[in-house]
Amino acid sequence: MNDDIANIDLSLDPPTTVGLLTTFICNQFESKGFKDAVLGVSGGVDSALGVALLANALGPDHVTGLAMPAKQSDPQSLRDARLVASTFGIKLIEQPIGGLISNFFGREKNIDRVRIGNAAARFRMIRLFDYSQKHRALVIGTSNKTELLLGYGTWFGDLASAINPLGDLYKTQVWDLADWLGVPEEVVYKAPTADLWKGQTDEGELGFTYAEVDRLLSLLVDRDYSIDSLRELGFKPAFIKRVLDMIARSQFKRSLPTIPKLSMKTVGIDFHFAREWAGRPQ
Amino acid sequence: MNDDIANIDLSLDPPTTVGLLTTFICNQFESKGFKDAVLGVSGGVDSALGVALLANALGPDHVTGLAMPAKQSDPQSLRDARLVASTFGIKLIEQPIGGLISNFFGREKNIDRVRIGNAAARFRMIRLFDYSQKHRALVIGTSNKTELLLGYGTWFGDLASAINPLGDLYKTQVWDLADWLGVPEEVVYKAPTADLWKGQTDEGELGFTYAEVDRLLSLLVDRDYSIDSLRELGFKPAFIKRVLDMIARSQFKRSLPTIPKLSMKTVGIDFHFAREWAGRPQ
Repeated sequence: MNDDIANIDLSLDPPTTVGLLTTFICNQFESKGFKDAVLGVSGGVDSALGVALLANALGPDHVTGLAMPAKQSDPQSLRDARLVASTFGIKLIEQPIGGLISNFFGREKNIDRVRIGNAAARFRMIRLFDYSQKHRALVIGTSNKTELLLGYGTWFGDLASAINPLGDLYKTQVWDLADWLGVPEEVVYKAPTADLWKGQTDEGELGFTYAEVDRLLSLLVDRDYSIDSLRELGFKPAFIKRVLDMIARSQFKRSLPTIPKLSMKTVGIDFHFAREWAGRPQ
Repeated sequence: MNDDIANIDLSLDPPTTVGLLTTFICNQFESKGFKDAVLGVSGGVDSALGVALLANALGPDHVTGLAMPAKQSDPQSLRDARLVASTFGIKLIEQPIGGLISNFFGREKNIDRVRIGNAAARFRMIRLFDYSQKHRALVIGTSNKTELLLGYGTWFGDLASAINPLGDLYKTQVWDLADWLGVPEEVVYKAPTADLWKGQTDEGELGFTYAEVDRLLSLLVDRDYSIDSLRELGFKPAFIKRVLDMIARSQFKRSLPTIPKLSMKTVGIDFHFAREWAGRPQ
């Protein structure tokens, strides 16, 4: 990384940002009529930041974490999930999903690990939304902006939630806020992993670091830099192309199902709930 | 229903509409780089219309239906699903989901039937997307516009798909097109049901008919009628209020997860993939 790139600053002011996110969470719960939250707690830094923000905003008694390890999950992840829950005083329910995954694939052999990972993420989604229905708790997502832009997540799995307070924070910003809010160091600074197989790390699988890609994404997406300017700054052409391809190929994961327009107002295109429809006395 | 209301005409010209939908399907498959489709076939008219449209657009050899009955599903539904598949010459794979549901709920007693219905819809979603990943087939949704507007479906369950050719057709329009395309009469004209418990019918559960609500929705949503004009036309105030409440309360199901805006470009709010990022040679 050359000097120019290394100087790109993504730092946020933690008190201001945490204040904004706390207000957002409180407003969302009030407008949707909920008091309780439920989220998946993996032992990683994203869900740990989610726990910290929710415990601050709602009070820890109103937050429940579900730890849902698969058979191949690192046992350390569950220990870290317990540490996160105890640090912020929330309830943690442990519900392994290995049995569901075995039952789902049955006797099929040589199953691609992407299929297993997607099924695992979706079974967790079902657990969270079932808990939500049973206990009247809002399902909170913890996908960060880097993951959302790169499509590094499962559609209708970990990407599915009612509200996602982390969705406009790059991964490197998640680290900073988590550290500031008192997430235990061993959780903040361990290598990020989807925990789908032994030795998997995000950065190993992606082939670049979050520090590099967050700088590129913030210039490209938030500050409208042209591809030529990014190359002039020193980002390698192959890296730029790889990231653009990832954004393009994952566009569907940031979208609602595509519906063809036949009428005047189409769901997902130009239908909007009109304010005057709400609260009209009859 | 009074005369004015009964005269509201929602009829579509079948050849024109089928032509538009066929073009939509072909364009979507071409632009997304897919040749094959997979969809859930329940034995109902919506998925039957989906099968008919896809078989016409892609050829029946490129369409696979999954029939995924739960333990409480009416056995007639599976027979109807087989009839639909054989009528249009597509492959049907039968994969009951009763075992997954039992495994999921374990020894819990007295489970609310809404929870069971939601879990069933989401297990079917997982089967469809797993088939999609394994066989490179696009998952096709078959939720109609009436269901989408009223929120009569499961978020991240039957509402989840890659493309939904039926999403801008009211239920009564689905009936007309299905009939015109040769869906067997016994499928078109049976009472619509989510098939979640014995004797359930949509219209019984909703408390109004599709013919009534489609007229109301089309005036309210597509033609911008005010609530006063709808009352003048003869729609009962309690019925109008009920429908408005259903639209309002299900707004989240037509939305992506809510993300708080912190940066210049936020996913789901104002981030859009820029055309100039695609296909730039490096």
